[in-house]
Amino acid sequence: MKQIKENQVAVFALGGLGEIGKNTYAIEYKDEIILIDAGIMFPEDELLGIDYVIPDYTYIIRNKEKIKGLFVTHGHEDHIGGIPYLLREVNVPIYGGKLALGLIKGKLEEHGLLRRAKMIPIEEDHVIKFAHTQVSFFRTTHSIPDSLGIVVHTPEGNIVHTGDFKFDFTPVGAPANLTRMAQIGEEGVLCLLSDSTNAEIPGFTMSEKKVGKSIENIFTQVDGRIIFATFASNIYRLQQAVNAAVKHGRKIAIFGRSMENAMTIGQELGYIQAPKGTFIDHSQLNRIPDNQVAIICTGSQGEPMAALSRIAFGTHRQIQVIPGDTVVFSSSPIPGNTLSVNKIINQLYRAGANVIHGSLNDIHTSGHGGQEEQKLMLRLMKPKFFMPIHGEYRMLKMHTVLASDCGIEKENSFVMDNGEVLALTRDEASVVGKVPSGAVYVDGHGIGDIGNIVLRDRRILSEEGLVVVVVSLDMKNFKVSAGPDIISRGFVYMRESSDLINDAQSMLAKHLQEVMNKKTTQWSEIKNEIIDLLSPYLYEKTKRKPMILPIIMEV
Amino acid sequence: MKQIKENQVAVFALGGLGEIGKNTYAIEYKDEIILIDAGIMFPEDELLGIDYVIPDYTYIIRNKEKIKGLFVTHGHEDHIGGIPYLLREVNVPIYGGKLALGLIKGKLEEHGLLRRAKMIPIEEDHVIKFAHTQVSFFRTTHSIPDSLGIVVHTPEGNIVHTGDFKFDFTPVGAPANLTRMAQIGEEGVLCLLSDSTNAEIPGFTMSEKKVGKSIENIFTQVDGRIIFATFASNIYRLQQAVNAAVKHGRKIAIFGRSMENAMTIGQELGYIQAPKGTFIDHSQLNRIPDNQVAIICTGSQGEPMAALSRIAFGTHRQIQVIPGDTVVFSSSPIPGNTLSVNKIINQLYRAGANVIHGSLNDIHTSGHGGQEEQKLMLRLMKPKFFMPIHGEYRMLKMHTVLASDCGIEKENSFVMDNGEVLALTRDEASVVGKVPSGAVYVDGHGIGDIGNIVLRDRRILSEEGLVVVVVSLDMKNFKVSAGPDIISRGFVYMRESSDLINDAQSMLAKHLQEVMNKKTTQWSEIKNEIIDLLSPYLYEKTKRKPMILPIIMEV
Repeated sequence: MKQIKENQVAVFALGGLGEIGKNTYAIEYKDEIILIDAGIMFPEDELLGIDYVIPDYTYIIRNKEKIKGLFVTHGHEDHIGGIPYLLREVNVPIYGGKLALGLIKGKLEEHGLLRRAKMIPIEEDHVIKFAHTQVSFFRTTHSIPDSLGIVVHTPEGNIVHTGDFKFDFTPVGAPANLTRMAQIGEEGVLCLLSDSTNAEIPGFTMSEKKVGKSIENIFTQVDGRIIFATFASNIYRLQQAVNAAVKHGRKIAIFGRSMENAMTIGQELGYIQAPKGTFIDHSQLNRIPDNQVAIICTGSQGEPMAALSRIAFGTHRQIQVIPGDTVVFSSSPIPGNTLSVNKIINQLYRAGANVIHGSLNDIHTSGHGGQEEQKLMLRLMKPKFFMPIHGEYRMLKMHTVLASDCGIEKENSFVMDNGEVLALTRDEASVVGKVPSGAVYVDGHGIGDIGNIVLRDRRILSEEGLVVVVVSLDMKNFKVSAGPDIISRGFVYMRESSDLINDAQSMLAKHLQEVMNKKTTQWSEIKNEIIDLLSPYLYEKTKRKPMILPIIMEV
Repeated sequence: MKQIKENQVAVFALGGLGEIGKNTYAIEYKDEIILIDAGIMFPEDELLGIDYVIPDYTYIIRNKEKIKGLFVTHGHEDHIGGIPYLLREVNVPIYGGKLALGLIKGKLEEHGLLRRAKMIPIEEDHVIKFAHTQVSFFRTTHSIPDSLGIVVHTPEGNIVHTGDFKFDFTPVGAPANLTRMAQIGEEGVLCLLSDSTNAEIPGFTMSEKKVGKSIENIFTQVDGRIIFATFASNIYRLQQAVNAAVKHGRKIAIFGRSMENAMTIGQELGYIQAPKGTFIDHSQLNRIPDNQVAIICTGSQGEPMAALSRIAFGTHRQIQVIPGDTVVFSSSPIPGNTLSVNKIINQLYRAGANVIHGSLNDIHTSGHGGQEEQKLMLRLMKPKFFMPIHGEYRMLKMHTVLASDCGIEKENSFVMDNGEVLALTRDEASVVGKVPSGAVYVDGHGIGDIGNIVLRDRRILSEEGLVVVVVSLDMKNFKVSAGPDIISRGFVYMRESSDLINDAQSMLAKHLQEVMNKKTTQWSEIKNEIIDLLSPYLYEKTKRKPMILPIIMEV
């Protein structure tokens, strides 16, 4: 960052480039830093026990006096999930729409951080002024209410961050503010940072209203119970399910903590409306005829601990699937979750339920705009420079092709990596350096103590298992006084492989005595001898390479 | 199986029901068993280190005198991959089309089983006769040449097994024999076992010829090198890529062992035809201009050790991606592989390649027929009883809906599990019992020694890591003579967590001396004490539950 000059605006991301998740962007001008979003990412390999991933906040911590505020575009986890971890390091004021702040509040309460947090609700027409920069907003449509795009005004020009968006012309909530976007474009945009998620998808994303019609159709046709699974944060979808249930005389029971939470906040803030008596308690479920029941629950991504999975597999304390149930997946599985979702669908069919899922039924739509919507944003904003954000490399790259089609000069588009810094003046833009960036793993209570070594070990252990060799050595008389004993976990089933283990033990015993005869006193040397001897032996016999952990006790 | 009566035909699967993979079916009448296919399945969680899964062959082994032969429908791994493991147990004669036998031959050679194997090539018009049953065939279209459906003739009626099929009316190879299928249907089909893979996909599957046109288009437009990745076994696809390359004056280099193997067998059997000099050696690649080069390689499913992955990540010894390359994925990722494929696509873009992938480009088509094709098979065969095979539960279930639409009475359709036995007479069908069935894991050299306990351990180790507690006890004087020492792997990074480990050690040391003071001599009791003490302590401090392995040495 040394390379940034006095009059340059620095734009960079700590997360969100080359990946979908942990969105965290910064715009820096003189001694002011505007942060946009602080998200988390879910790890690909659920087996390695990581709960989630946050960005490396080093740069923010080092420059904490400069931070003017964290501006939140909307309330999704990949945009707000990192806030508790950020706040432990830097107590910045948080600006956001009221739903986003409502969700953040719950999060901070869980982490015991609510009292010290400073939260400022923003409306579309607010302007937040700092010494050199000011921040204004424009309303977008996305799969959660209160989604905002952000404009950071600097003396060199305006930087626009779209947040996540689509252009839904018949949305369930407020429409996107096209007029305002056109005005911002007309005023002049130095650099546009725009959502690239669906850059590979041609056309326009289907309207949420169309999903509403499909939900309505299902409620018209189905006779038994309806179990409706979707993302808790998709308040519009919840409202549409509630509408359909009310219209068809069904009472609603909510399952899943985040769903209960969303329904409560949604109703408090007026986003979800339902006549009194619509919602019923779990205990009332059995007293109501099946065709007057709708269950709205979490778990549409196949999460094994969520309500739907437990309902499907019969491990839920209060409710299980009965023949005649219709389960609606108002969602589409993200790539890593397809297998888990498949498992649940199969299980639901086995339990006698009917299942409605998949894009064929028009019961889900993306929250992100397709290629035509991305072009519309580009045409409205008419930026000089362009930086695609929020997407894998291929999506960022494709977004620059769309930008080029819309008249942005190719050399003015910047496909960047997390940490790379784009320095802008009113005339020029170039990548000038890198700030620290990377993945920090959060697992249980620990932040950052799961590093690459721990993960590498978990991977080896999971694929090959473990062999522990314990031996007591008498270092005065240079004798093996007990052992070697071999214990394994995740390697072979020991009762059935006793020959293999016994042979390895006697082989090691013989050799270790030879090592002792040489009067070796270096434990590390003895440990290496054990590994060098045992590893090829086991590989030859089993074609596996377990982790070998030699333990030497001295007597 | 006791329940099978003298005149009943038993039909069952050891693999292939409720799953896609390890297809292994059996038709038993009196003292004769006809086996159809012997496949493997790839495990879902690659992290657990299982190479693949085969069925439990117990029933086959117990009844080996009855086995008349293994009839192979086609040469895909999920239909022939289990043969070496089956042959070690039961040396049955193998009947199959010439390509399937060619691929099986290679497999048996690797396992050193070729010499004792008995292989009988079959043509569509062959009839194999046994004392009570006979077996005949009909040609189908699928994504590999020499695909056959199988008819087992019994005195009670004919059992038809479709194998994998689609109805490609403009195939690259021979068309399906509709006439013969109609004749078989007219003769009478007691029970149809039909491929359910695409039972959820409406309509007809795209023709392989259309894929050929898309490939041709790509070769017309691209100027740099073309890297073409597909399934090695899709000989038709290979031929189409070869055709396009020849037509546009490109030489072909092959990368990946299974691809080299497929090209060799394909050419030997006459399925792949190319002018002399079409194929070049890897060493010649650099001497030819980029626009005269086509590379055909494995790895279209993102397999990390396959050619394409190594080419993308620059770890291939002979070739790497250069800007201007066009990489074609003539494939679609199976659900579990989406993330790996995504990773490679991103990496290819980063390396400067253009990537053509996805269904939008019509460069891949399924080998399995959609709903209309499944209905066509049902209408041709007009079976009395119906057993959907080859698919997850939801697909089998959906296939019975299609069957019902085509006039099969609902109570005559049987959605079965692996192991369940359908007993048929000319008039009746019912599920009468179960034979042993289940998953046997193959890992390295071991078959079956990776059981559920080993897998459970690997799972815990991978998610939570391991803590080893070593302590030497002096059981004469009831004293702790050394330790306890704590070693961890995959839990926390120990250098940074020395306080945690030290505190745990002193806590354990104190408590263990108290245990010794009580003169406990039961090691299992002492081990349990260690676990009971340490586990909640670590959970409180870290919210993690590592596997705890107490090791006691006596001095």
